[in-house]
Amino acid sequence: MGRWEPGAAGRLRVAAMELYAERGFDRTTVAEIADRAGVTARTFFRHFADKREVLFGGSEQLEEHLVAALAAAPADASPMAAVTAAVLASADYFADLPREDARRRAAVIASTPELRERELIKMASLTTALAGALRDRGVEPAVAALAAETGVGVFKVAFERWIAAPDDVPIGDVIRATLQDFSALTA
Amino acid sequence: MGRWEPGAAGRLRVAAMELYAERGFDRTTVAEIADRAGVTARTFFRHFADKREVLFGGSEQLEEHLVAALAAAPADASPMAAVTAAVLASADYFADLPREDARRRAAVIASTPELRERELIKMASLTTALAGALRDRGVEPAVAALAAETGVGVFKVAFERWIAAPDDVPIGDVIRATLQDFSALTA
Repeated sequence: MGRWEPGAAGRLRVAAMELYAERGFDRTTVAEIADRAGVTARTFFRHFADKREVLFGGSEQLEEHLVAALAAAPADASPMAAVTAAVLASADYFADLPREDARRRAAVIASTPELRERELIKMASLTTALAGALRDRGVEPAVAALAAETGVGVFKVAFERWIAAPDDVPIGDVIRATLQDFSALTA
Repeated sequence: MGRWEPGAAGRLRVAAMELYAERGFDRTTVAEIADRAGVTARTFFRHFADKREVLFGGSEQLEEHLVAALAAAPADASPMAAVTAAVLASADYFADLPREDARRRAAVIASTPELRERELIKMASLTTALAGALRDRGVEPAVAALAAETGVGVFKVAFERWIAAPDDVPIGDVIRATLQDFSALTA
């Protein structure tokens, strides 16, 4: 079963996103989310620590997935090539994610300062993780930090572009286009 | 008088940084900061909204300074060249900043999650501002976002490098070296 498909966690995620969109993140309770998903609050807490984690629950897996892709790049790949492999790997990570869910999530985050902060922290954590993976490949710390900042910057812009793109444009295409734009920018 | 020199605000900044380093941010009060600076709490609040703003008070001016440098780049400068002008402008913004103050500030922020979040928000705000200034020059939104993410990434890495560098290395040298590393990375 795909990462974004039904099951209790998936249903809770969809229910939460609907409620956050309808009445705002602050005014939604865990009981209401569980109710709409047709499960108990107890089941909610088996899957998520709190109502914020419904939105960010996948970010550790994303981080692991990208770090693994970076580590799997050929030993002689340049730092930027290794980071590019990580950014491209986000395409298959998000391949099954329904665009509408991603849009709803982005709208909820954009409208809630506390969630925007949490999103920034997750992106900073991803940057730190990618820089660490580069240093593990023998890349000098300052260069590793630069490459990681760059890679996460490209990822952020690509993800925002994908959310705003027409429904039939796959995320992989948007990521590749953004990487090309980045190359043109620095040519 | 330079931006970082004495006067009540400067003395309050130094006193706050010392106290945060000595006993931690959470356990320092405004009254203690004012006391050490030899002023009243009332004077403290004339300069800063709260004890957090002592650390971040200059970030709006930094943002304005960098946006102005970007806007002043030649009309035919590429997006990356315009962003580079902004990053270079941070050198003269910080020219008078005593390294020891910058180091203390970085250490306090690193050890307090609430302050790390605030720092991330300020950097995100800088990214948004630079992207906006690029769009004002007619740069396509996605390219503007990429260039701004890149510029702020370079700035962050350069600033961290400068803090860790020997005392006689001027910030301008570190910024130029970081920009060169970035060029080499994407060559």
